[in-house]
Amino acid sequence: MEQIGTQECLRLLGSVSFGRIAYSLHALPAIRPVNHVLDDGNVVIRSHSGAGLTAAAGQVVAYEADAIHADDHLGWSVTITGKALLVSDDKAIARYERLLRPWVDDVEMDAVIRIPPELVTGYRLVNHTS
Amino acid sequence: MEQIGTQECLRLLGSVSFGRIAYSLHALPAIRPVNHVLDDGNVVIRSHSGAGLTAAAGQVVAYEADAIHADDHLGWSVTITGKALLVSDDKAIARYERLLRPWVDDVEMDAVIRIPPELVTGYRLVNHTS
Repeated sequence: MEQIGTQECLRLLGSVSFGRIAYSLHALPAIRPVNHVLDDGNVVIRSHSGAGLTAAAGQVVAYEADAIHADDHLGWSVTITGKALLVSDDKAIARYERLLRPWVDDVEMDAVIRIPPELVTGYRLVNHTS
Repeated sequence: MEQIGTQECLRLLGSVSFGRIAYSLHALPAIRPVNHVLDDGNVVIRSHSGAGLTAAAGQVVAYEADAIHADDHLGWSVTITGKALLVSDDKAIARYERLLRPWVDDVEMDAVIRIPPELVTGYRLVNHTS
């Protein structure tokens, strides 16, 4: 297990299209896979009405993305922690709506959430025996 | 998006070797990818000293596994929520240690954690347009 520096963590996060957000919903921990874009170092995600993700706004949340091989479990994992902010600027919302295609076409997306990373951690699982 | 029933959720969870646990560490949300076995309906994971995962014991945690295709974002996601319990029975620990191979060989594994699922939710992302 090798630690990854902050810049490389953010680069890896930007190299994949989705991750998982951990937040609190009805006083219980919740995890939800969601797609993201990395914008000026911030993780940006979209939420639809049914997902309960809007509840994450205002919370300190963790967002994790990884690329771990199912067979040998080698790969990397990056987690950022920060306060999830509801994006309210119309221009920014319109831009993110172009950048982020929702996974689910038939539901209304109602919020864009930006997570400025206050903590960034990551590690690689590498094979030293080969 | 289609909801998945409890039994099918647990079957899917048992069909993959790893997932991500969301818990609280130093009063902040934490996510960590970890491998699991499904044993009699419970999610069982192992922790090593450095992972901070031992802190999850006693907490209500969420555990999520998914198989989501990077290109079209189709697939499934299953989350269980339950109180993480430290396994203290020597025989059970020995059995789980055989079933769960740690990802990281050069660190000492120090805890086995069992999560009885109190809530089970899951959904499939399917393509209705094809």
